[in-house]
Amino acid sequence: MIVKHLAIRRTTEGNDQILDLTAAVQGAVADSGVATGQASLLVQGSTAALTTLEYEPGLVGNDVARALERLAPRDGRYLHEETWHDDNGHSHIRASVIGPSLALPIAGGRVPLGTWQQIVLVDSDTRPRDRTIHLTIVGAAG
Amino acid sequence: MIVKHLAIRRTTEGNDQILDLTAAVQGAVADSGVATGQASLLVQGSTAALTTLEYEPGLVGNDVARALERLAPRDGRYLHEETWHDDNGHSHIRASVIGPSLALPIAGGRVPLGTWQQIVLVDSDTRPRDRTIHLTIVGAAG
Amino acid sequence: MIVKHLAIRRTTEGNDQILDLTAAVQGAVADSGVATGQASLLVQGSTAALTTLEYEPGLVGNDVARALERLAPRDGRYLHEETWHDDNGHSHIRASVIGPSLALPIAGGRVPLGTWQQIVLVDSDTRPRDRTIHLTIVGAAG
Repeated sequence: MIVKHLAIRRTTEGNDQILDLTAAVQGAVADSGVATGQASLLVQGSTAALTTLEYEPGLVGNDVARALERLAPRDGRYLHEETWHDDNGHSHIRASVIGPSLALPIAGGRVPLGTWQQIVLVDSDTRPRDRTIHLTIVGAAG
Repeated sequence: MIVKHLAIRRTTEGNDQILDLTAAVQGAVADSGVATGQASLLVQGSTAALTTLEYEPGLVGNDVARALERLAPRDGRYLHEETWHDDNGHSHIRASVIGPSLALPIAGGRVPLGTWQQIVLVDSDTRPRDRTIHLTIVGAAG
Repeated sequence: MIVKHLAIRRTTEGNDQILDLTAAVQGAVADSGVATGQASLLVQGSTAALTTLEYEPGLVGNDVARALERLAPRDGRYLHEETWHDDNGHSHIRASVIGPSLALPIAGGRVPLGTWQQIVLVDSDTRPRDRTIHLTIVGAAG
């Protein structure tokens, strides 16, 4: 059995910026030597999330953010903001509903994603952030 | 340690059709011989999602789709659709927010689900699709 | 390789009560002796969910529930309720969209969460419930 840990680091602009992590994750899986197993991904912090998405400009730059605005409007009223005198109540909600983690099977030495399916970080905070995504890989060599 | 990979294949009608994968997943776990461990599930593609749900006609045939309509209306405006001349902008959003993966513990040789809790595929695309759900199982025999 | 299973039990008040599971999960990881690996968490039942959240009173006691009300209003119409003569259609939707599971990497003998990021149970049912969260840990000792 092989067990590996890796941290992926990215600087974001916040405000629902979406970054494509696919190459970093597939690279880590390839480097691990695991042929069959699983990867667990977690973004550190409570205002960013992980999911998969077709990484194309319309969804990435507009459509996802507009839908999240329906769920948790930027200008809504949040006790979080009144308590802490900040402006990111909506960011916390958006991140918690999408979720902070992914459970990814590894088969044939890679994560079997679809062609138009990318692993993405959605950073909903209201300012630029340095983000760390932790990734552990467990499995068997080929 | 036991490490297994399996692909579950299903044909869907799209349009938020929801399929019950519980028997397929519990069967794969039983066949693997793993008593204690974990299963990682991922649906391939960016317009379908995995979660758990009480698999009964009201939720499956109406209520989930109506709630997703609030999050990402079918007739909303999506740059994705304007760019690619398709009609499934809402499908991508719905799938990304629910999420493509599940991390399932295995205990006593099965996934310890509730009685009214089923593992489901939610296919939000706008046309019938052939779907593959990848499943890897890692753990120890009893 | 180490493989462990643990069940965390909590009594909730339902109605979107949010409980902090971080200490229980980090304690289980520490007790397991795993230095590098992964934990899979699943809440049993179809009206509760797992995610991460900054565990502070504004988000926990007000803001999350208000956002979930936009997605699946308590007083909305649900076929689930008409069929089964109950009142928790919105609870099922909220739980399924947030999701029932978390895939957590373990590094340095702990789950590498952010300082303001807690592992939480969100119980959206309409009455008090006894909840079981199953947790399996797989990995290597230090």
